[in-house]
Amino acid sequence: MQLLKNFNTLINRLQSLENRKKVVLVCPNDSHTEYVINRALEEGFVDFTLVLGGTRAPFIDRFLADYPDHVTVHETATPDDAAAYAVKLVHDGGADVLMKGTLNTDNLLRAVLNKEYGLLEKGHVMTHVTVVEIPSYDKLLVFSDAAVCPRPTDEQFKAILGYVLGVCRSLGAESPKVALIHCTEKVSEKFPHTLSYESMKEMARNGEYGDCCVDGPMDVKTACDSDSGAIKGISSPVVGNADALIFPNIESGNVFYKTLTLFAKAETAGMLCGTTAPIVVASRADSGESKFNSLALACLADKVNK
Amino acid sequence: MQLLKNFNTLINRLQSLENRKKVVLVCPNDSHTEYVINRALEEGFVDFTLVLGGTRAPFIDRFLADYPDHVTVHETATPDDAAAYAVKLVHDGGADVLMKGTLNTDNLLRAVLNKEYGLLEKGHVMTHVTVVEIPSYDKLLVFSDAAVCPRPTDEQFKAILGYVLGVCRSLGAESPKVALIHCTEKVSEKFPHTLSYESMKEMARNGEYGDCCVDGPMDVKTACDSDSGAIKGISSPVVGNADALIFPNIESGNVFYKTLTLFAKAETAGMLCGTTAPIVVASRADSGESKFNSLALACLADKVNK
Repeated sequence: MQLLKNFNTLINRLQSLENRKKVVLVCPNDSHTEYVINRALEEGFVDFTLVLGGTRAPFIDRFLADYPDHVTVHETATPDDAAAYAVKLVHDGGADVLMKGTLNTDNLLRAVLNKEYGLLEKGHVMTHVTVVEIPSYDKLLVFSDAAVCPRPTDEQFKAILGYVLGVCRSLGAESPKVALIHCTEKVSEKFPHTLSYESMKEMARNGEYGDCCVDGPMDVKTACDSDSGAIKGISSPVVGNADALIFPNIESGNVFYKTLTLFAKAETAGMLCGTTAPIVVASRADSGESKFNSLALACLADKVNK
Repeated sequence: MQLLKNFNTLINRLQSLENRKKVVLVCPNDSHTEYVINRALEEGFVDFTLVLGGTRAPFIDRFLADYPDHVTVHETATPDDAAAYAVKLVHDGGADVLMKGTLNTDNLLRAVLNKEYGLLEKGHVMTHVTVVEIPSYDKLLVFSDAAVCPRPTDEQFKAILGYVLGVCRSLGAESPKVALIHCTEKVSEKFPHTLSYESMKEMARNGEYGDCCVDGPMDVKTACDSDSGAIKGISSPVVGNADALIFPNIESGNVFYKTLTLFAKAETAGMLCGTTAPIVVASRADSGESKFNSLALACLADKVNK
């Protein structure tokens, strides 16, 4: 499988799959969600179950009329009922991907975390993974965590590394190169995450994560620019050529995300990992395009948590 | 005074000043430092004292011959002797700015922190301030701390805010707008820096920092893009129009610095604040241009710590 270099080739990959992905969408009421549904049906890689929560937007009947074989509608009374129904559907194997429409993320997550029919198995760690297309970088770059884990513990870092590698492999990286981010190369007890980094590298060297190369701590520039590595005299397959970055805390991950989208014309996709199926919970400030990319990513990487 | 929008106008401002700035440079041995000296002499806003530490690069005599009125050379035996001599010169009022050439930052800082003739007065906080010119932002943006304070305490945050405001005013911002960065707008005990942010805002409202507007927590996009603020329904003079950003920890500041320079074609200048004179300690990976910008910034903002 060839390495996917941008979101267009990611869509093409989805179109070449034998089966369409089954996506359950909770409360599709707003125009961004309408755009996402429309685009995914046009591109032809999704069958939708649209779960309504007391509101039936005018576009629902248009999609039912235009794509009767690929759209199913289920009506419930409230957004919370819609969330519960959708989560159960994923739980019972009726959908590959869960996507949030117009309801609060907290309300959807309450259903996702339900002990009986929820999607987070005991001992698993829920985290957010972003994939970004940067005009000046020659491949898609995966990173975590910009949105969910504030200060990953040792165990959480190890889980995050697993999900990030899974996403990289879904994108066609056979031996993903992962950079563990800090501001310097020094490992120190003053920065406990650098100690977690040491044990992640040890596990990777021992083959516990399959074929991959994990290195760090290093800064963003060393990870993504070979000149910087050369000046610092650092030699590693990861330096200047990272497929993925793991950030030490939520603030640094979030700064990376916001800086790239605002100042570097980057396009993003994001999803929750660690649950039994990927969950798309794009935020209001994301563009329709970004939400569509997120759905496409989740469809391609739907086996990442298995 | 007009707001400086880029580094070119900053240089022009320095050229328009009545007196040249006095810069003492420790161990000028490498080609980047040669570039900086040459450029500053050509632009005509600096008088240099070059303190040699056992090495006399060939370009030293050329500068002495070409600019006899603006270059003084002092020879010492070792880099540590050079550092001590240069720091004492600043301490005794013989220079406005201290700049590092080819020696380890740690060796220079040992002299800077000397109890007898050093430059950090009791109770002051040393911090790093960066100024960045981003092609897609319409003015110079000031931020801290990408390099020195790992996890600012309440007291350190308050000092950093003072230095950042001083740099903004040196750049011509009469009422600087400062954004306190986090990944969300929520203030919470789970993130102690957001509690520091509350007391900084309170002090700013009480006039303790002069004319300015300090707001947050908010993310980078909300601080620098008015659309993001509008979508989130946040209204503040800072939103979308920040003159300066204060980061919660060194990793997020460093990620901002590296991401901008690598992916957004940004040009930077940086210096240490909190000491009795600004100190330029550019790192090996910085370009000659960036080192020259740093010197120019330190010359313009040399009164920021007074």
